[in-house]
Amino acid sequence: MKIVITGGAGFLGQKLARRLLQLGEIAASDDGVRSPIDRLVLIDRVAAPDFGDPRVKAVAADIADAKVMAGLIGPDVDLIFHLAAIVSGAAEADFDLGMGVNLDASRLLLDLARAAGNKPRVVFTSSVAVYGGALPPVVTDDTQLNPRSSYGVQKAIGELLLGDYTRKGFVDGRILRLPTISVRPGAPNKAASSFASGLIREPLNGQPTVCPVSTDLKLWLLSPRGAIDSIIAGAELQSAALGEKRALNLPGLSVSVAKMIAALERAGGKAATDRIAYQRDPAIEAIVGSWPGAWDISRAVGLGLKADPDFDAIVRAYVEDDLPKA
Amino acid sequence: MKIVITGGAGFLGQKLARRLLQLGEIAASDDGVRSPIDRLVLIDRVAAPDFGDPRVKAVAADIADAKVMAGLIGPDVDLIFHLAAIVSGAAEADFDLGMGVNLDASRLLLDLARAAGNKPRVVFTSSVAVYGGALPPVVTDDTQLNPRSSYGVQKAIGELLLGDYTRKGFVDGRILRLPTISVRPGAPNKAASSFASGLIREPLNGQPTVCPVSTDLKLWLLSPRGAIDSIIAGAELQSAALGEKRALNLPGLSVSVAKMIAALERAGGKAATDRIAYQRDPAIEAIVGSWPGAWDISRAVGLGLKADPDFDAIVRAYVEDDLPKA
Repeated sequence: MKIVITGGAGFLGQKLARRLLQLGEIAASDDGVRSPIDRLVLIDRVAAPDFGDPRVKAVAADIADAKVMAGLIGPDVDLIFHLAAIVSGAAEADFDLGMGVNLDASRLLLDLARAAGNKPRVVFTSSVAVYGGALPPVVTDDTQLNPRSSYGVQKAIGELLLGDYTRKGFVDGRILRLPTISVRPGAPNKAASSFASGLIREPLNGQPTVCPVSTDLKLWLLSPRGAIDSIIAGAELQSAALGEKRALNLPGLSVSVAKMIAALERAGGKAATDRIAYQRDPAIEAIVGSWPGAWDISRAVGLGLKADPDFDAIVRAYVEDDLPKA
Repeated sequence: MKIVITGGAGFLGQKLARRLLQLGEIAASDDGVRSPIDRLVLIDRVAAPDFGDPRVKAVAADIADAKVMAGLIGPDVDLIFHLAAIVSGAAEADFDLGMGVNLDASRLLLDLARAAGNKPRVVFTSSVAVYGGALPPVVTDDTQLNPRSSYGVQKAIGELLLGDYTRKGFVDGRILRLPTISVRPGAPNKAASSFASGLIREPLNGQPTVCPVSTDLKLWLLSPRGAIDSIIAGAELQSAALGEKRALNLPGLSVSVAKMIAALERAGGKAATDRIAYQRDPAIEAIVGSWPGAWDISRAVGLGLKADPDFDAIVRAYVEDDLPKA
């Protein structure tokens, strides 16, 4: 089987690729049978690093480039993980860039998958940013899409499109709304939620960091490990188990910033928490504060998906998987 | 002031144009002051009929044609009524046509309005088809968008886009979700709800018609007269009255097909109702049956919008306004 990952050079794309290569097979058709992964194409603006694995092909390309993409998405592609996106802060700052990647490139991908004619499985990572405004006390898979950011609007449109392409039988889509990923390795990025990783990552790496929000703010978090588990589980779900409702809020943990900082202190001591400067940023607070804090994830849990056990486990996963060795 | 109507040759576009010419002025800026209508541009695939009014310019063009549209939408346009659409049945039958007009042309229009730089007011007619699936007993403006047709998906995407273009300050958008229009004059069309007009129109015109649904089915209806009143009221609403919530479910009447037929009999006698053949069509029932039957319209009513008094009044409005004279 041939798999394509857009955003394949990103941290999540790379982790997903590594896990898929390790697994060696995946069940991505409705007979539920695992098939060997023969080919894994990683598409991103920059080439993914060398995996030293003959199954991997890294392509450096703009996913909005119709000509390049047409050469990559054909009837031999059985499974597409569409992870590529312009993150929330960047999509808000550069409207056209966000529209071009988050909307137009997603549409292009769906049209190519449809034209291929083999009804590939398409896993689309969406976001809590599709919610906003006056929210119910607990958010469910059926809560109104009411995005309050361009990123959220573009993700919501991607969801609607994938839902309709699935209903029409063009592709077999699954929409996984990711909690905020923490602790993301690497450098800060332009996501409004970048601090949700930076608060833990930078202090553990011996670097200063800024907390731009109230410590009372609750975030809905999932570790990279947990995200990869959920993305693969989402790809393997039988169509019949999903039915018409293709969007799933992935299980996460609702954690206040204060509790995140307490866990950081348990892992890295006061030396770590002393590296946090508190400097509120109204632009970040406006975006992140519009996201919900409490969730009913019974549907996803019923389908076998799991959250991390607690935030200390999330910090441990970062230390084990991603903390640069001294 | 210069006004553009897309779908300007359609029955609703023509009625809107006629009413605007009659009014002569409209309040379409936040100072609430009515300004004279100097120019009314009607864009449609076919030229609108001659109104014999120097203020009117009829343009026959494809609204998805970027070059033509760029010549029509500039900083001199103060108000745009975006009515043009591929109707539900046609968008379901021809996916690409629906996407091209309902999505791509709407996006083009918004991008041109944004590029104009004068933040024009944009009134977008949406539809009850944005709802579907397991619905709450009563639908409100906050009920989840969950379309079960390509038309509904495309309208929902148009809503999200207009909402975001408004939030970003590119345009001043208002989304009016029209009930099913009944009694629409003219010939049957490819809307799944075409029968909601045909059931009354054809018998009163002495023609046979088909009822393709159960007579228990409840429809949510608004007369063309009421629709024009609501569309103009929607255009005149102050931005502050709408706030962040740009979408309004317009007031309508919830009427069963049986009650529609009873009103037809009161207006046209048994001769009229005898012209109805009962022949259920599962494709139509699937689409129309996914639309909600009961509505909370308190927000729209609070903003001054009105439904028709009863279905008999709707039938009378058709007889007065549109029934071909014998």
